[in-house]
Amino acid sequence: MTTPVLPDILLNPRSVAVIGASDDPARIGGRPIAAMLQLGFAGRILPVNPNRREVQGLPAYPAVADLPEVPDVAIVAVPAAQVLDVVTALGERGTRAAILFSAGFAEVGGDGVARQDELLAVARRTGMRLLGPNALGLINVHSGFVGSFASSIALGPVRAGGVGIVSQSGAYGGHLVMAAQAADIGLSSIVMTGNEADISLGEVVRLLVEDPRTGVIALYSEGIHDGDGLVAALQAARQARKPVVMMKVGRSEVGGAAARSHTASIAGDDAVVDTVLAELGVVRARSTEEMLDIVRLATRGIYPADNTLGVITVSGGAGVIVSDAAEELGLPMPAMPAATQARLLELLPICAPRNPVDTTAQFVNDLSLIRPFTEAMVSDGGYRSVLGFFTYAGATPAVAPTLREQLSRVRERYPDRLYVLVLQGPREVLRTYEEAGFTVFEDPTRAVTAIAAMGRFGRAFAARDVLPPPAVRAVSLPAATPSEAQAKQILAEAGIACVPERACELAESAVLAAREFGFPVVLKILSPDILHKSEIGGVLLDVRDEDAVREGFAILTARARQAVPGARIEGVLVARQVSGGVECIMGIKRDPVFGPIAMFGLGGVFVEVLRDVVFHRCPFGEDVAEKLIRSIRGAPLLLGARGRPVADIAALASTLSRLSAFAVAAGPRLQAVDLNPVFAMPAGQGAFAADAVIEVDPLPSASR
Amino acid sequence: MTTPVLPDILLNPRSVAVIGASDDPARIGGRPIAAMLQLGFAGRILPVNPNRREVQGLPAYPAVADLPEVPDVAIVAVPAAQVLDVVTALGERGTRAAILFSAGFAEVGGDGVARQDELLAVARRTGMRLLGPNALGLINVHSGFVGSFASSIALGPVRAGGVGIVSQSGAYGGHLVMAAQAADIGLSSIVMTGNEADISLGEVVRLLVEDPRTGVIALYSEGIHDGDGLVAALQAARQARKPVVMMKVGRSEVGGAAARSHTASIAGDDAVVDTVLAELGVVRARSTEEMLDIVRLATRGIYPADNTLGVITVSGGAGVIVSDAAEELGLPMPAMPAATQARLLELLPICAPRNPVDTTAQFVNDLSLIRPFTEAMVSDGGYRSVLGFFTYAGATPAVAPTLREQLSRVRERYPDRLYVLVLQGPREVLRTYEEAGFTVFEDPTRAVTAIAAMGRFGRAFAARDVLPPPAVRAVSLPAATPSEAQAKQILAEAGIACVPERACELAESAVLAAREFGFPVVLKILSPDILHKSEIGGVLLDVRDEDAVREGFAILTARARQAVPGARIEGVLVARQVSGGVECIMGIKRDPVFGPIAMFGLGGVFVEVLRDVVFHRCPFGEDVAEKLIRSIRGAPLLLGARGRPVADIAALASTLSRLSAFAVAAGPRLQAVDLNPVFAMPAGQGAFAADAVIEVDPLPSASR
Repeated sequence: MTTPVLPDILLNPRSVAVIGASDDPARIGGRPIAAMLQLGFAGRILPVNPNRREVQGLPAYPAVADLPEVPDVAIVAVPAAQVLDVVTALGERGTRAAILFSAGFAEVGGDGVARQDELLAVARRTGMRLLGPNALGLINVHSGFVGSFASSIALGPVRAGGVGIVSQSGAYGGHLVMAAQAADIGLSSIVMTGNEADISLGEVVRLLVEDPRTGVIALYSEGIHDGDGLVAALQAARQARKPVVMMKVGRSEVGGAAARSHTASIAGDDAVVDTVLAELGVVRARSTEEMLDIVRLATRGIYPADNTLGVITVSGGAGVIVSDAAEELGLPMPAMPAATQARLLELLPICAPRNPVDTTAQFVNDLSLIRPFTEAMVSDGGYRSVLGFFTYAGATPAVAPTLREQLSRVRERYPDRLYVLVLQGPREVLRTYEEAGFTVFEDPTRAVTAIAAMGRFGRAFAARDVLPPPAVRAVSLPAATPSEAQAKQILAEAGIACVPERACELAESAVLAAREFGFPVVLKILSPDILHKSEIGGVLLDVRDEDAVREGFAILTARARQAVPGARIEGVLVARQVSGGVECIMGIKRDPVFGPIAMFGLGGVFVEVLRDVVFHRCPFGEDVAEKLIRSIRGAPLLLGARGRPVADIAALASTLSRLSAFAVAAGPRLQAVDLNPVFAMPAGQGAFAADAVIEVDPLPSASR
Repeated sequence: MTTPVLPDILLNPRSVAVIGASDDPARIGGRPIAAMLQLGFAGRILPVNPNRREVQGLPAYPAVADLPEVPDVAIVAVPAAQVLDVVTALGERGTRAAILFSAGFAEVGGDGVARQDELLAVARRTGMRLLGPNALGLINVHSGFVGSFASSIALGPVRAGGVGIVSQSGAYGGHLVMAAQAADIGLSSIVMTGNEADISLGEVVRLLVEDPRTGVIALYSEGIHDGDGLVAALQAARQARKPVVMMKVGRSEVGGAAARSHTASIAGDDAVVDTVLAELGVVRARSTEEMLDIVRLATRGIYPADNTLGVITVSGGAGVIVSDAAEELGLPMPAMPAATQARLLELLPICAPRNPVDTTAQFVNDLSLIRPFTEAMVSDGGYRSVLGFFTYAGATPAVAPTLREQLSRVRERYPDRLYVLVLQGPREVLRTYEEAGFTVFEDPTRAVTAIAAMGRFGRAFAARDVLPPPAVRAVSLPAATPSEAQAKQILAEAGIACVPERACELAESAVLAAREFGFPVVLKILSPDILHKSEIGGVLLDVRDEDAVREGFAILTARARQAVPGARIEGVLVARQVSGGVECIMGIKRDPVFGPIAMFGLGGVFVEVLRDVVFHRCPFGEDVAEKLIRSIRGAPLLLGARGRPVADIAALASTLSRLSAFAVAAGPRLQAVDLNPVFAMPAGQGAFAADAVIEVDPLPSASR
């Protein structure tokens, strides 16, 4: 039973049945009809109501069976107990999709879960797709198709435009719509997904990516059910150059269940969300206001991959505020060319021509300066984004018409730049600038945040194919969590180098191994039942001679027996003691949403105390791995800080990317990998895992 | 020549002379008069203009000498070349203060600096205080006294209220005023300080602290000239329970000159500003919008020291957004009592009664639930702050009147709580809530940020006296930067313990010292001309026997001679080699604004790579020192992380606070102290500086 492709007809039905249709436009079953009538929806509306011949002036039908045609989409607004019958009837008649307003399913727990499963079974059997249940539904602003009972639709028509809103929350979706209205943001479609029994967040995003009316997507999410689907949709958005701004809330909830291995315990799932969104070029907004600011500027359709900011301001103070914010966001503000600076100083001796270009209030007194100054910034400065701070002066009747006209001439000549103005004043004056192609903010810091986001979209859209992940042979995981030696063997087959070592069942073979590797050596207890050896004193460092090896063998086996009675003890692992490298840590944890996630950090106090680690979705190539390694705060320790040798970054990157490929090849039974430490040796000398733990879901037959 | 106290008459003059008065209300010399006439300023306005008998309907006088009375305050709007004569005439007649609009002084450099110095000399001689020059001046909104030519005043009267604005930037001050207007924030006084030749930012803040009409202060600063004065004013504000919100811009500029010592090079001056403002209970805003949000809520006058947040919401999503933001800002959201939760569930079975209390949209359908729910939160939940998320529903005609009335009854019964609503809708509807005592935000995240700030004010106002700094005997610094041994001697007198060591002129006395301390020892070159010994190989660790001491003595003196030819070599320092402690670093740097600043961090990679350091203005007691020590990211290493011994925090704190007291006692010639490392031994075993550098400004006679 595979999931049928979501038809775009969900967004653009030619005919809509409303089951539970009401004559009262204020009732849930009446609202969509009233709204569609008001908005002039051109499709056929087919009310179903057993008690009325007519609903809101439209002919009504007693039941689904009585409908004169198979509707493209049905809206279901009946009590929970009737939903299954209605959905069955709709599906069997061949309806393509149903929007289920009705509540009382998985969200109430208990029986509701089973009722929802029944709905899904019917949907799969009949090939009909379901939005919801417990969904506030969807609105196509352009066509006037309203498959929603949101109370906000009663407040008047929504301004049409290019922004699609997808929200898992109905109530917050309504808030977003009203906030977008207040900000003059035009909307294409609004989809509120409810319980997502069938149609997932990712499918809805994909629908909007393919919708020609949607250019920018605002996404509000409380929990992602289908990570792969969302990732695919976001990749499609990037491919289509449609920016996605996302609020993923619930940062403060830490997925506790996944904390089994040491690696997994280091950071909560939110860090994974961050890394996945960053990888896909999605800008994660910290607040609704920030989301809408970014969305609003994104509707200009200009996403400079090589974003730079030029600032022209009537206030030196505003210039400093903007510079602070730009530096914090990594948005470069290069200086104007020296010759241009000299020219501007001739035009206006009291100006500061570097960047920010501070014209002082003198600018407002001589409006003829506006065009040469702004044009100099765009042409000579070459800035991809220009921010003009004109505050309330720019909105006064004496200034506004000329300022707008002068700026417009620059914009017409250089239409590929982002033009943002910071103004204070009456809404109707600010709108004249918006209509002339300038995006207006009242706060300079918010303006910079939005400008910086456009560059992030641009870089994501421009990103060329990166190196492919390394090829890894098919991995066959053991039936249960393997011993350290087995784990290293498995990893070695994936091309991950380990410190030379040997599993020794007897003390005398340990002595032989130590002699071969050279002293000092490290001894570790070898048991599939003891994962974290150091916690039971199962590791001895600095074992300096043969007698010490014999003694150590005895100590370790005794400690293991005492700490884990009944543990299977397979002997002792003898390893060469590596020195001169930087201790790193690498790992894999399986994220419940996004699958295997690789982790890298420096070892010891860095990972334990400072949590200086980075994550990335698997798999990835060496170039991505190297970027990750260089992005940790402690990276200078690998790069030769304070006279240290430079570490073998290439070998580290190779190991990390191989680990990521291994994690994918190993499949969903792989729960975690923990390589701690990995010694990054000086450049050219490689990187070696000195300890390895692989955790797997045991096969049923292997469970003890 | 001491600075006379700034008279509050500057804000409330009974008579105002305007020198360079213009009949044209649009000209700089005309604007203040026009504005005062329009606003009904009750004091006497005395225009001075040599060419007119009348200015804007008022009798005018040819010169200062002709004025019929001594004005309390004079506004000076004449060209730079005439300012000195005018100021002299005003001062000699006994004018208390002058506001100098005129530009062309220190801000243009060169001769302008000298011209400004001349003005100041006249002011000091005559006892008249100066605001400016190059100042946009001040406005007392309540009295209608306008000593400003800000163009914004031409846009209509400013709404009167309790917020004082102080801005170093004229143009940005105007932007702030207009932004405050747009946010319905009522203002008391607006002061733009210009060049601050005489009256400083701190003095203006103090003026507003003492102004009964001002309850909240918004402060915009680009550079602080008089750190002590500002600190004193901010302390007075805290004492008077007047919250101060500050934007200190220029975060991205790092004071380069102060990077002389290792300590000083670790962080820029902005970290110092952060620590000083935090100490004084000032909330530092990241943007204008954030400043005005906080200021607006602060005008309610409720600053709960034990702030907690209760959230009541019609959207579960909004509840999550608010919870995320609250956790990030450290604002607690405790759960409702279990019994109350049960009671609320009885009232509304589909609600989530914990906190956030999610009532769902059902709430809007049954408005009688509003009061019992909100009252339960305030009384049973005991929250000091309540945030209600009602979005657009709360602003609809069907809901607004009842919601407002029900909430008002709760507020009247519990008037000491902060009530914040998140609403979307027409401005006039939102105003009805504001007038009823509820502060309205359109974005939930902004609301939480403002609420959290009220708690920070509350804690600052409630803070009781902390421990006094330790008493330190008067310090007499040497004439020039001392050797390490001298430095340690000086510090020992201030009660700062150092690792046992002895200065040895000869190799054989070094051997004797080593024998006494026990091997291994550390040898260090001893020279007042070599500050950073390790950089020239001037430190030998792990010196294990007597022969090694002799050999080391020879090596060090040879290296020193080679590295710094002509250096005065006083021998070698022999020190016990300490082991088992945690390496810390402590230091002092002299901040050009705030004087001596103490620094603490962990040593080695922590300070070098991670810059994990904290700062505090000197002096301070052991309690503050301990809080600082515990606040570094790496603090777990001192507190027994992963089985380490707990370090002697008390001894560290004592050392740090003594260092802070020493820095003050040493006076302004002390440039820097660098104790690196300081060994924090296990609890009860003390903390010892193993190396000490003291840098002093040489006395003229000591310069070489």
